[in-house]
Amino acid sequence: GPAAIDYRSLLQEDEYHRLANATIHDLLDKLEEYGDSVDIDGFDVDYGNEVLTLKLGSLGTYVINKQTPNRQIWMSSPVSGPSRFDWDQSSQGWIYRRTKANLQKVLEDELAKLCGSAINLS
Amino acid sequence: GPAAIDYRSLLQEDEYHRLANATIHDLLDKLEEYGDSVDIDGFDVDYGNEVLTLKLGSLGTYVINKQTPNRQIWMSSPVSGPSRFDWDQSSQGWIYRRTKANLQKVLEDELAKLCGSAINLS
Repeated sequence: GPAAIDYRSLLQEDEYHRLANATIHDLLDKLEEYGDSVDIDGFDVDYGNEVLTLKLGSLGTYVINKQTPNRQIWMSSPVSGPSRFDWDQSSQGWIYRRTKANLQKVLEDELAKLCGSAINLS
Repeated sequence: GPAAIDYRSLLQEDEYHRLANATIHDLLDKLEEYGDSVDIDGFDVDYGNEVLTLKLGSLGTYVINKQTPNRQIWMSSPVSGPSRFDWDQSSQGWIYRRTKANLQKVLEDELAKLCGSAINLS
């Protein structure tokens, strides 16, 4: 199961929503721009019900959503599988504790390889 | 990363979509019914952009989506984290290879505990 939550390190809920929403909306904008620049059959980015979905046709589907009790952003990637990002105060970014990877950086690396075109998400 | 795909065992894509869509739509119907019977603040079930989202307010959010290249259904659970279900011909169900757990059974167990009321999803 998931790692135990360290409640002492949890963001306040309103601060969490502010940070996570800003990140997800920024991703939505940049992924929409990216979609206009690449030629991927079935490329579709959508935000609804607080879930960001990026479909890449036969290449698979990304799902990015908030998980409020954990104060995390969860991502399901067709490349790297599932991962969960915590807010990191020192780098002011969302970091996957196990790998120290940054959410936007993971997406940049994977999308560049999948779609054959660089994307700047940070 | 995710386990390697055994392409020999893959469903045909149209058969996969038929099975996965039937499962997800059936879950949607039953979760909507369940929502009418439990008193959970923030209960909201939604299907959009091929993603099923079940919000349980402060208890967290479930996301269930298709991952077509793998012929899988992926679930993010606030209780058990992420898991990926393959179609199992012998039981005619979606099974998480690592634990042999059935998708509907996992949800039944978790929701009964989270919401304090039994649900029949199969």
